Amino acid sequence: MAVKPIRVTVTGAAGNISYALLFRLASGHVLGTDQPIELNLLEIPQAMGNLEGVAMELTDCAFPLLQSINITDQTGNAFQDTSVAFLVGSRPRSAGMERKDLLEANAQIFRQQGRIINEHASRDVKVLVVGNPANTNALIACKNAPDLKATQFSAMTMLDHNRALAKLASHLSVPVHQLKHMIIWGNHSSTQYPDISHCQVGDEPALSKVSEQWLSERFMPVCQKRGAAVIQMRGASSAASAAHAALEHMRYWVCGTPEDDWVSMAVLSDGSYGIDGEVFYSFPVTCKNGEYSIVKNLSVNDFSRNYMDQTYKELMEEREAVKSLF
Amino acid sequence: MAVKPIRVTVTGAAGNISYALLFRLASGHVLGTDQPIELNLLEIPQAMGNLEGVAMELTDCAFPLLQSINITDQTGNAFQDTSVAFLVGSRPRSAGMERKDLLEANAQIFRQQGRIINEHASRDVKVLVVGNPANTNALIACKNAPDLKATQFSAMTMLDHNRALAKLASHLSVPVHQLKHMIIWGNHSSTQYPDISHCQVGDEPALSKVSEQWLSERFMPVCQKRGAAVIQMRGASSAASAAHAALEHMRYWVCGTPEDDWVSMAVLSDGSYGIDGEVFYSFPVTCKNGEYSIVKNLSVNDFSRNYMDQTYKELMEEREAVKSLF
Repeated sequence: MAVKPIRVTVTGAAGNISYALLFRLASGHVLGTDQPIELNLLEIPQAMGNLEGVAMELTDCAFPLLQSINITDQTGNAFQDTSVAFLVGSRPRSAGMERKDLLEANAQIFRQQGRIINEHASRDVKVLVVGNPANTNALIACKNAPDLKATQFSAMTMLDHNRALAKLASHLSVPVHQLKHMIIWGNHSSTQYPDISHCQVGDEPALSKVSEQWLSERFMPVCQKRGAAVIQMRGASSAASAAHAALEHMRYWVCGTPEDDWVSMAVLSDGSYGIDGEVFYSFPVTCKNGEYSIVKNLSVNDFSRNYMDQTYKELMEEREAVKSLF
Repeated sequence: MAVKPIRVTVTGAAGNISYALLFRLASGHVLGTDQPIELNLLEIPQAMGNLEGVAMELTDCAFPLLQSINITDQTGNAFQDTSVAFLVGSRPRSAGMERKDLLEANAQIFRQQGRIINEHASRDVKVLVVGNPANTNALIACKNAPDLKATQFSAMTMLDHNRALAKLASHLSVPVHQLKHMIIWGNHSSTQYPDISHCQVGDEPALSKVSEQWLSERFMPVCQKRGAAVIQMRGASSAASAAHAALEHMRYWVCGTPEDDWVSMAVLSDGSYGIDGEVFYSFPVTCKNGEYSIVKNLSVNDFSRNYMDQTYKELMEEREAVKSLF
């Protein structure tokens, strides 16, 4: 019997992250090699020509699973009956823009998208926010979609998670697949806390293999500032690695995480680990049957507590700046 | 038992096609989800910083199959023991450059690469030329690698093949996977002949469903000029669709074509279909056990013969322009 197609919406669809994401999505990478897809691609009016070029290239791949491509600059149209949404587009910081202005400009966008998702999307929609400031954008979208569950929204810290795995693997000279139980706590920003205190290298604790000095002076700053380092070297911001992380995030969410590991996702806090304010905070999670669960009751030492609180504080400040738009 | 890694070389590795290709390759898309890969990435010296940024992003994906990344501007180093080579980089046409100059400039590059592949690559290497003029670049590389079999070289017309499938599917309003037996004959240039005379739509001949006028006035010119149309719309040349076609080409070559279909690849002519000069000409091929076979004895009507000869003539002229470098 033919499998019913899934409608997938991608915003900022003519941008570099989406360009790296869409072709892997259409090839069946995320949702399965027998799952037909209907793509809804949203852009701002100025980018519609460019987006049409992207749609031409998607067509030119003759993907067997890609049943339709709908390009639009109308948000309402973009989210009609969608089951999987990648919110990639966001307003970048322009010259002279204060941090608060940037938060507000994006809050306006994600408020509108949240409302329209609430009204038009499939009732089982999963929404992944990639556009920055991702955590707070996810909060805004979620708060403006009262008919959906808050657990249908998440923001991406999987790129940070993968970067931390790669950095630790390189330092220890082990293959990355030997590492388990990495955690990114908090905000997808430079305050994020990449935590290896539960990490295992094979059967051994990673913490026994590194110095505290390396952790705080090398590992953490390198992870926190990796985005800027890529821009400096490549002359453009991370696109393919961000797209990969977004695809992985959605695949784990839809298809489940491995039995013996977890991943990092920013989700609405349920009060775990003392994060009792209403923010999207990155936690270790497992996924099963299309639902995530925050991993509970991990021990938190004083070193970790301090960093977990700093990034929490930043998220609460971001929340304060945009809460008039809830 | 651990699977032995395969070494894969990509040239022009900091360019847009490679950027769309490398991450799918590293995710296991082409060579299999249990096949470890060692990547050798070649660029010109001026692009090494950019390439380092790409390598950072590849690292940041924490691909379990990606065992190593070696970036280099030394051709000899790039092809050492490589089993799979994507020759993506080529010299683009600059202002005031004649077609003959372009052919020669690229012939110099591909002569050097052919010689080094001959000397340093694994004896079972498969070489796919993507950089234009792809057919003649493949010929030059092949002619400069006398210790390898000519059947270890091919050039890409899979993008044209996919574009033709997509265009026909759209015209007939059928899903693309219902079409079989498309053929691209000849050169990956505007003289290519996209031939639907053996195409089937389900069990019916495609030719019975289209007019000859549509074929020669719409279908063929649209296919032949699709690259330019994408540039005009997207503001950049086809990258992700070209990368997809390159990955598919290599996957078919390594893993085999479906039982009930063929694909198009430019390979050294064996005299089939009256193409008896020494050129890389796109034919319908099937692949099995890592070897391609030209599909023989298809009927060729007068309409087809004319177009097949035109594109053959262009390839013979290209050959003439560069044969001093054999």
